[in-house]
Amino acid sequence: MSEVRAERRTRGGGGAARRAERTAVSVETAKFIQRNIPNFEVLNEEALEIIEYNAETVLEEIGVNFVENPEALQRWREAGADVQGERVRIPRGLARQLCATAPSAFTQHARNPERNVEIGGRNLVLAPVYGPPFVRDNEGGRRYATIEDFRNFVKLGYMSKWLHHSGGTVCEPTDVAVNKRHLDMLLAHMTLSDKPYMGSVTEPVRAEDSVRMSKILFGEDFVDQNTVMTSLININSPLTFDSVMMGALEVYARNNQASIISPFIVGGAMAPVTVAGTLTQVLAEVLAGVAYSQLIRKGAPVIMGAFVTSIDMNSGAPTFGTPEAAHITYGVGQLARRLNLPYRSGGSFCGSKLPDAQAAYETANSLNMALLAGVNFMLHACGWLEGGLVSSYEKFVLDADQLGTLHHLAKGVYMDDNGQAMDALREVGPGGHFLGCQHTQNNFKTAFWRTEVLDYKPYETWEEEGARDSSQLANVRVKKLLRDYQAPAIDPAIVEALQAFVDQRKASEPDAFG
Amino acid sequence: MSEVRAERRTRGGGGAARRAERTAVSVETAKFIQRNIPNFEVLNEEALEIIEYNAETVLEEIGVNFVENPEALQRWREAGADVQGERVRIPRGLARQLCATAPSAFTQHARNPERNVEIGGRNLVLAPVYGPPFVRDNEGGRRYATIEDFRNFVKLGYMSKWLHHSGGTVCEPTDVAVNKRHLDMLLAHMTLSDKPYMGSVTEPVRAEDSVRMSKILFGEDFVDQNTVMTSLININSPLTFDSVMMGALEVYARNNQASIISPFIVGGAMAPVTVAGTLTQVLAEVLAGVAYSQLIRKGAPVIMGAFVTSIDMNSGAPTFGTPEAAHITYGVGQLARRLNLPYRSGGSFCGSKLPDAQAAYETANSLNMALLAGVNFMLHACGWLEGGLVSSYEKFVLDADQLGTLHHLAKGVYMDDNGQAMDALREVGPGGHFLGCQHTQNNFKTAFWRTEVLDYKPYETWEEEGARDSSQLANVRVKKLLRDYQAPAIDPAIVEALQAFVDQRKASEPDAFG
Repeated sequence: MSEVRAERRTRGGGGAARRAERTAVSVETAKFIQRNIPNFEVLNEEALEIIEYNAETVLEEIGVNFVENPEALQRWREAGADVQGERVRIPRGLARQLCATAPSAFTQHARNPERNVEIGGRNLVLAPVYGPPFVRDNEGGRRYATIEDFRNFVKLGYMSKWLHHSGGTVCEPTDVAVNKRHLDMLLAHMTLSDKPYMGSVTEPVRAEDSVRMSKILFGEDFVDQNTVMTSLININSPLTFDSVMMGALEVYARNNQASIISPFIVGGAMAPVTVAGTLTQVLAEVLAGVAYSQLIRKGAPVIMGAFVTSIDMNSGAPTFGTPEAAHITYGVGQLARRLNLPYRSGGSFCGSKLPDAQAAYETANSLNMALLAGVNFMLHACGWLEGGLVSSYEKFVLDADQLGTLHHLAKGVYMDDNGQAMDALREVGPGGHFLGCQHTQNNFKTAFWRTEVLDYKPYETWEEEGARDSSQLANVRVKKLLRDYQAPAIDPAIVEALQAFVDQRKASEPDAFG
Repeated sequence: MSEVRAERRTRGGGGAARRAERTAVSVETAKFIQRNIPNFEVLNEEALEIIEYNAETVLEEIGVNFVENPEALQRWREAGADVQGERVRIPRGLARQLCATAPSAFTQHARNPERNVEIGGRNLVLAPVYGPPFVRDNEGGRRYATIEDFRNFVKLGYMSKWLHHSGGTVCEPTDVAVNKRHLDMLLAHMTLSDKPYMGSVTEPVRAEDSVRMSKILFGEDFVDQNTVMTSLININSPLTFDSVMMGALEVYARNNQASIISPFIVGGAMAPVTVAGTLTQVLAEVLAGVAYSQLIRKGAPVIMGAFVTSIDMNSGAPTFGTPEAAHITYGVGQLARRLNLPYRSGGSFCGSKLPDAQAAYETANSLNMALLAGVNFMLHACGWLEGGLVSSYEKFVLDADQLGTLHHLAKGVYMDDNGQAMDALREVGPGGHFLGCQHTQNNFKTAFWRTEVLDYKPYETWEEEGARDSSQLANVRVKKLLRDYQAPAIDPAIVEALQAFVDQRKASEPDAFG
């Protein structure tokens, strides 16, 4: 298939190389998705104009808070906003005008240039789950995540054909000090994978560390001139920008590194219960956040984010894969395109505790909607479980397999002579069958998406093999991928330099937990 | 919620009535879906014209077979087709011209007029799984279906809020003679539910029985003047119309009852491996089939059907929820709208042996695509398992719950003042929360779709309650629904007359199996 880049790796030379060659695992990574299908749009022009008008009203009349950040308040004052205390009221039109300097698309470079991604336009880049403090697998159940789990998920991401990006906090390595774990996480992404990665945002100094390590990996000049990280800056919805996240944003924007500026909304709690109300708030928040990034550095790459779930009004629990979340995701896509900004949303969202039917319904609902909504960067595209509390080994590979369906959906319908298949129709005719005809022989290898984990076997075979459910089949695949894993080649001097930086930084301050 | 019609039933009078009232179960059935969202379209005008042109070429040059059906051949000859042997070649434009007398929408009446459905236009009517010889539940595993299972599935369908239609062969009652089971099946649909149902198609005489029983239920005149059945006429793809199915179609068309005229295609086996080739064949087959229905009776209601799956080219197994099936489903929707015919496709399709993650991914992919493809009648909307070999009790209620998401998705985004929620945004402001605000209080009951089976509980509660997966939660719900089931009221004289008809027909011929 033309979109897939295949590679073979070997270790060392001579006999070892030949042995390695015999057992080498082919690691394929699909190119990021380039859509050849339309976007799905739920809002008409009038609805869009109402929401855009209302968002400006929110910024002008209600305003946003920039908390514990006097420099930000000063920047807003100089830009023409009305600042009272920590409240920033932005005159109608100003935020949108400031947003205009943000690029509509940008390249995030990977250390392997084959893995570079273009974020924006008609593209969709897929990155794994971000943030869970727990992991789950079939053997160990649910437990706190460790750095070993973290490395395993980076390896699984590297081995996943349909995943374009190594992500960031694929799980929280809770066995490493809070003030030092970002160093180990970055080192893992940089050395165990060659796909692009995300930087730390939990303190501005950790964002600085991310930039410094990236300069060791890519070279100082390269990082000055290119974007090598996309990092996640959450807005404290409603309408609040805290100093930690803004501090990280400031570091990245100054260094021309990309940030996802993303409201984090459980609808009914952090935003109104209605879709149009939530869209209004999301737009107001993103306008303020993106405008602020451009006050730091005109042209800094940013992504319009929207993490939006519904709420179960009985229990207060967040809910996933719901129709209301879909409406919001479709709507934000339209708003992002009108702002000419790349769009982040969607993911393998679910509330289920297990990788079961509930998890898969919710996830499939979310993945499909994100593709059709025109999302350009999908964080959490695989491995998310239990409302984001858990990174699931089994669900990671199940979801990653489903990401292949998005690639094939996005291709659209081929209408060339081969696609039209009139020869096949003529050859077979009424009552025949197509399995053996020439057209089928010519096309069968690439005609259909193929799973690498789901079961299509005859019932009797399946039963003889233990009547395994998806979770058990996924468990087998997780083990196989981790067994087959081979690290991508890297200059040993760079690894040494990265390790030295990590060691020095770790030695420079005592461990902090919590 | 305004789209839901609630009912309470009681049995008898006096003390019994009061006791019944206290324990009566509220049975809600949502109105069929009326879409307020756009259709998703993957084909541009040029692609549509190519496919339409090619389909006419198939009819004109290759033709279709009407097998063992000399009367059909005669009808085609008289209509202007070129008939040689059983091959019917239809001049370009003729089939489409004949199709023009089929209605673009029709009402299928239920014995409870509240349950009438409008098939066509922007509507979507949901009906359960059709045809499996096996059933599965958590206790009994996989086994041959019986008439008791059949009745249970009719009851579950009646109790399912989001299901508008009782369906047809919800499973094959294999313990009843092949030549008599249609009588028991119809009796169950007519007495255990008050939703609309499907007629038998396995022999023309069984279609006649279906009409006769419907006349007992609705009255002779009513059935003469109204459509009370929608039945499934499969085309024997590629391009073949067998005499049994055509015989049933003839009965129904003559009686002004509706037929779904539906290619049954496993892509790569019964149609070309490419999407455009399959679309061409589907259109050619439907044009021929619908045209034939109009040769029987101009104006007879018909639905353009498309049952299409992909194939696993390694094993030959059919595959479900795939991107190729989605492209075909979207494309057929566009072709059906250009033909001005109601459209049947989609369903809770999956290849999995269990109601697990695989089943749910595949099902959710299929359900979402069917909604966006503009499907008007969705057979198999819940309960389908193992490629259609199995009706699953647990999956039936899980899928039926997910059908609620389609209803909410179809509503679109409310843009009135309440939807815009500017009051809520003003009331809460930066850093607040929306849970307690007036707007949330006013809207929380209807703002979000709610599951009746999925789990949103806190982890600890869920673990204390046995750490149940979706299948186990569904099993609990199945039992509750069957325990709570109360038959809808019906005139006892009608039940007697139906039973007498069934008894007389059963006595009139010996049992036949196979």
